[in-house]
Amino acid sequence: MTDVAGKTIDVAVFGAGRIGKIHASNLARQPGVRLKYVVDVNRDAAAALAAQYGAQVADIDGAMGDASVGATVICSSTDTHADLILQSAAQKKHVFCEKPVDLTLERARACADAVAKAGIVCMIGFQRRFDPTFAALKARIDAGEIGTPEMLVVTSRDPGAPPVEYIKHSGGIFKDMLIHDFDIFRWILDDEADTLHATGSCLSDPAIADAGDIDCTAVTIRTKRGRLCQINTSRRAAYGYDQRFELLGSEGMLQAGNVRPTEVTAYSKTAVSSDVPEHFFLERYRAAYALEIAHFFEAVTQGKPVRTTVADGLKALELAEAATRSWREGRAVKLNEAL
Amino acid sequence: MTDVAGKTIDVAVFGAGRIGKIHASNLARQPGVRLKYVVDVNRDAAAALAAQYGAQVADIDGAMGDASVGATVICSSTDTHADLILQSAAQKKHVFCEKPVDLTLERARACADAVAKAGIVCMIGFQRRFDPTFAALKARIDAGEIGTPEMLVVTSRDPGAPPVEYIKHSGGIFKDMLIHDFDIFRWILDDEADTLHATGSCLSDPAIADAGDIDCTAVTIRTKRGRLCQINTSRRAAYGYDQRFELLGSEGMLQAGNVRPTEVTAYSKTAVSSDVPEHFFLERYRAAYALEIAHFFEAVTQGKPVRTTVADGLKALELAEAATRSWREGRAVKLNEAL
Amino acid sequence: MTDVAGKTIDVAVFGAGRIGKIHASNLARQPGVRLKYVVDVNRDAAAALAAQYGAQVADIDGAMGDASVGATVICSSTDTHADLILQSAAQKKHVFCEKPVDLTLERARACADAVAKAGIVCMIGFQRRFDPTFAALKARIDAGEIGTPEMLVVTSRDPGAPPVEYIKHSGGIFKDMLIHDFDIFRWILDDEADTLHATGSCLSDPAIADAGDIDCTAVTIRTKRGRLCQINTSRRAAYGYDQRFELLGSEGMLQAGNVRPTEVTAYSKTAVSSDVPEHFFLERYRAAYALEIAHFFEAVTQGKPVRTTVADGLKALELAEAATRSWREGRAVKLNEAL
Amino acid sequence: MTDVAGKTIDVAVFGAGRIGKIHASNLARQPGVRLKYVVDVNRDAAAALAAQYGAQVADIDGAMGDASVGATVICSSTDTHADLILQSAAQKKHVFCEKPVDLTLERARACADAVAKAGIVCMIGFQRRFDPTFAALKARIDAGEIGTPEMLVVTSRDPGAPPVEYIKHSGGIFKDMLIHDFDIFRWILDDEADTLHATGSCLSDPAIADAGDIDCTAVTIRTKRGRLCQINTSRRAAYGYDQRFELLGSEGMLQAGNVRPTEVTAYSKTAVSSDVPEHFFLERYRAAYALEIAHFFEAVTQGKPVRTTVADGLKALELAEAATRSWREGRAVKLNEAL
Repeated sequence: MTDVAGKTIDVAVFGAGRIGKIHASNLARQPGVRLKYVVDVNRDAAAALAAQYGAQVADIDGAMGDASVGATVICSSTDTHADLILQSAAQKKHVFCEKPVDLTLERARACADAVAKAGIVCMIGFQRRFDPTFAALKARIDAGEIGTPEMLVVTSRDPGAPPVEYIKHSGGIFKDMLIHDFDIFRWILDDEADTLHATGSCLSDPAIADAGDIDCTAVTIRTKRGRLCQINTSRRAAYGYDQRFELLGSEGMLQAGNVRPTEVTAYSKTAVSSDVPEHFFLERYRAAYALEIAHFFEAVTQGKPVRTTVADGLKALELAEAATRSWREGRAVKLNEAL
Repeated sequence: MTDVAGKTIDVAVFGAGRIGKIHASNLARQPGVRLKYVVDVNRDAAAALAAQYGAQVADIDGAMGDASVGATVICSSTDTHADLILQSAAQKKHVFCEKPVDLTLERARACADAVAKAGIVCMIGFQRRFDPTFAALKARIDAGEIGTPEMLVVTSRDPGAPPVEYIKHSGGIFKDMLIHDFDIFRWILDDEADTLHATGSCLSDPAIADAGDIDCTAVTIRTKRGRLCQINTSRRAAYGYDQRFELLGSEGMLQAGNVRPTEVTAYSKTAVSSDVPEHFFLERYRAAYALEIAHFFEAVTQGKPVRTTVADGLKALELAEAATRSWREGRAVKLNEAL
Repeated sequence: MTDVAGKTIDVAVFGAGRIGKIHASNLARQPGVRLKYVVDVNRDAAAALAAQYGAQVADIDGAMGDASVGATVICSSTDTHADLILQSAAQKKHVFCEKPVDLTLERARACADAVAKAGIVCMIGFQRRFDPTFAALKARIDAGEIGTPEMLVVTSRDPGAPPVEYIKHSGGIFKDMLIHDFDIFRWILDDEADTLHATGSCLSDPAIADAGDIDCTAVTIRTKRGRLCQINTSRRAAYGYDQRFELLGSEGMLQAGNVRPTEVTAYSKTAVSSDVPEHFFLERYRAAYALEIAHFFEAVTQGKPVRTTVADGLKALELAEAATRSWREGRAVKLNEAL
Repeated sequence: MTDVAGKTIDVAVFGAGRIGKIHASNLARQPGVRLKYVVDVNRDAAAALAAQYGAQVADIDGAMGDASVGATVICSSTDTHADLILQSAAQKKHVFCEKPVDLTLERARACADAVAKAGIVCMIGFQRRFDPTFAALKARIDAGEIGTPEMLVVTSRDPGAPPVEYIKHSGGIFKDMLIHDFDIFRWILDDEADTLHATGSCLSDPAIADAGDIDCTAVTIRTKRGRLCQINTSRRAAYGYDQRFELLGSEGMLQAGNVRPTEVTAYSKTAVSSDVPEHFFLERYRAAYALEIAHFFEAVTQGKPVRTTVADGLKALELAEAATRSWREGRAVKLNEAL
């Protein structure tokens, strides 16, 4: 195995769960990249994943302490992200970290500072920016196809809520779920929020309300340049994972639609029907996950900038924080309020 | 010409403009209905329309004073609506009136009171409720197809802004344009607003801002039952008139799409394309206009309730008033604030 | 009631059935056209239709003998078409006649001769040419949008077979049903058949086979210029009336799709679905019927050529005859074989 | 690397061109499968492909003579297929061979005989049967969703013709291009041809006619059970690779549509447009190629039957032969005529 620049990057993956497996599988296909360690508190999970790609099981210190490891891929639970980023920065290892950077702005900012000081690449896993449909739409905006962007409408719905235990430690729906939509908003409109209003309800399961959270939200953002964005989100869509957005511009509109498993259309006595969308994020963003990991290693090996930086992670978190405040206090908030 | 109940209803139409012509043409097709008078400050316009259907030109007093006139159809400018409703009520004539009832809540309430006291039918022209697509969707919600309604997203965009002179006297975008969307909201969710947040911008033409108005808006409503509604509106969509909404329910989703002039699909070297939507409201709601007039005369002749009452007109106006206040004051408003 | 050219055309309608009612209703809306007589062997049907439009009931001689009748509209049974055309020609009355001209080429040719000699307008009711979707597609071909036409695929399916009694006297599926498709072929490709191959089966109801007919067909035509056309037809499509075609050209493709009653899309747990097509020809071609009658009277009053002449009727019949022969003899036929 | 059954299968790939690369890449991902040899008359191409997967370059004898090679994957030019199948059979190596088996029925039959005698697995590369859309449609037919199959319409168009030099040695459009469609026909209708009629033209490039071939065809097949199939094919579709079919059944219809690179929809002033289909077979059938190779090795290692046998290859070739004869002789042919 040889890499383009003449040397192989050894990688440590933290977290051997659902998303860790995806990233491991994708990085195994990158030329010049070798999965060296898998780290997980669940040693069996770590061992199984390591075995699949000829890697070793290690603990955090072992992986971080190995100077030959050039990059870390952080897919462990949210509360470990900041520590692992800080340790990676201290060891001058490049970092790919799943969103969010952290549930608190303070610690997320500390990560951003450490990354800047260390001069490492730190990419946050906003994989949606790598989705072929979303990326093509973005390129067409940038090419001026619809003139000046004016209004963005984002629809973001999960097929079902996670367990309430998960929700309790998730930081709330705005940090856990809408953080992706906030990133889409910034990326697509290429603008920053000036004011934000969020409201929501708990309609699917009272246990979510008991945990202090909501399961559907309606967020409106007005940007510094006066552009508008509306985001509607639900933890439960009976028909599956619904990931669409549309952008009205001065010269037209672009829509990003869902992806279907097949292109079969059925005509029955009562309806003409096609497939429901891909079931959930692992299916819907399969291509996006592969492309983001390729992008990360390309950036690392070729010294290119990454598309989703730790600064993007911070900005999305600020929006999530503002949305939480707006919802709790029942008022629109200015983004320059101290958060 | 005979009518179902054995007598012909003579009708006076006020306003011989675009929408007056539509209604005249549609009521001429109703069995048992005769267009007797056309009233317009522009006598030539009145004469031309009257001639087309064998009617006479009259002034307001002449038409209102003729006891044989059983119903009035009010399509004149907004500032005349309330007076003509009050006069119709005084003369015990049934009324079909274009939206809005009035630009002020006070006068609109006076109309509602007068209608109630007179015991007449008073239908407000929210024609969208009669659109075949919208009406079919509503029937499917009511049949329980998607369980409990949870979240409504309304897209409502015009192909271009009216002249600024019109905008100056329109009462603002919320009363002039979104009043239809507020009615859709109440009808589809079958619920009333608890809180409302509105924001907006002027992005297409600075003259609209100079006139104290905006050209695109983002409104969020949370209902008394905790359901959510987002409305996005623009005065300008380069691709034409965009009238869609979608309702997420506990068991699925229903979408109402645009109507295309033809079902031609073209495959070129670069795209697969179909028609843009019907250009504007006269084309898009052609069927709806015919159905609402038929519904009005059916209600009048058969003593049935109308689908869009003066109370609906009042409620939509209250929402428009609340939205205007929310936008101006930059805050979410409660609907039970004194308006 | 006044007409454009200053005089009103009195019209006699022959046949008060389903299609007669459609035409009567549409011609009643033409300025300068008056329905004077309705003729039907079923006097009650004639009387009911006549009453609706202030017309009189007459017998054939009465209507044909009235010199004030300027045009006949023939919607009676197929076996009466030729006689009524010949009588109309003898009386110098313009003729609108439902397809087919006749079931025999000989009589159809006699009609064409008589029409030519009389110098009258004779339009055959190939209403599909007036369908807004089909007509728009044709205009786009003619404008060169897809370069040179090369291959046409026509899908033409009914929701269900007519009664076997009807089938027995229908002339067979090629003359009764595909005659429309043969006309579409000639119109869209703007070319004439060189060779034709037809096959078919009886798959839905053995009684149709017993009556000597088939219920589904596959026809291929190669034109004089080497262009190809395939037609697939069935008497029964469970999902309704299916009327599509697509034309591949040297620079692209144009498709004509079905029309749906509404634009509602439903997302359930298992499918994303929309309406089945309009149920049958009365619904699907509602606009086409109105436009063809308007076209006929425009042609008559303004001396313009009609889009679907008796010669078109003859050509379509020749193709139906050739297809019948090809199917029966199990071989491809040349169109210049004596038919 | 370990395989399911406890031993690794060594594979020799013949042909290092476009399709050889696809298969090599896919088989490299199969657990228990090792690419041992790449054989190509172009040694550089062989060496490049071999290097990519750690394989060796060999000549035919070297690869065939190595008893450790358990399977051959034949992607070389058509005229080598039969020889390589025969040699594989002689060496008791399982075979995956690209279509067609051969351009002559005689040699193809010899291959079928040799395969049967050797008792090896021989799968023909009709990858379309593995396309997720086509396979899902087939499963739904088999589940009875649309009742009894009645009429199949296949649309099969390439984005552009291959070089005339290729066409001269291709065996003609029916053997080169429609052979896939003939296999789809047999698979989807689960029936055999009784009669076949083919016609065609050369419309895109006179050089193709000079080479004795045509570039567009229209084929009709009537099956032994009376079902109908129409296939329309063109070497050139300006909008890309068009691969659709639809099956009418007694209870409904199923359509298989094209696949688009992205789900972006654009609304401009004049059209609502989406992507053209995936450009050509390598893109369109990317998933199918991966699935067919997985299927082959699963069949080989687990002793399961393959979905596309050498008998299927033979049947498709017979249809291609019949179509060629029908086209050349201008007549419908019976499939039991001596071919």
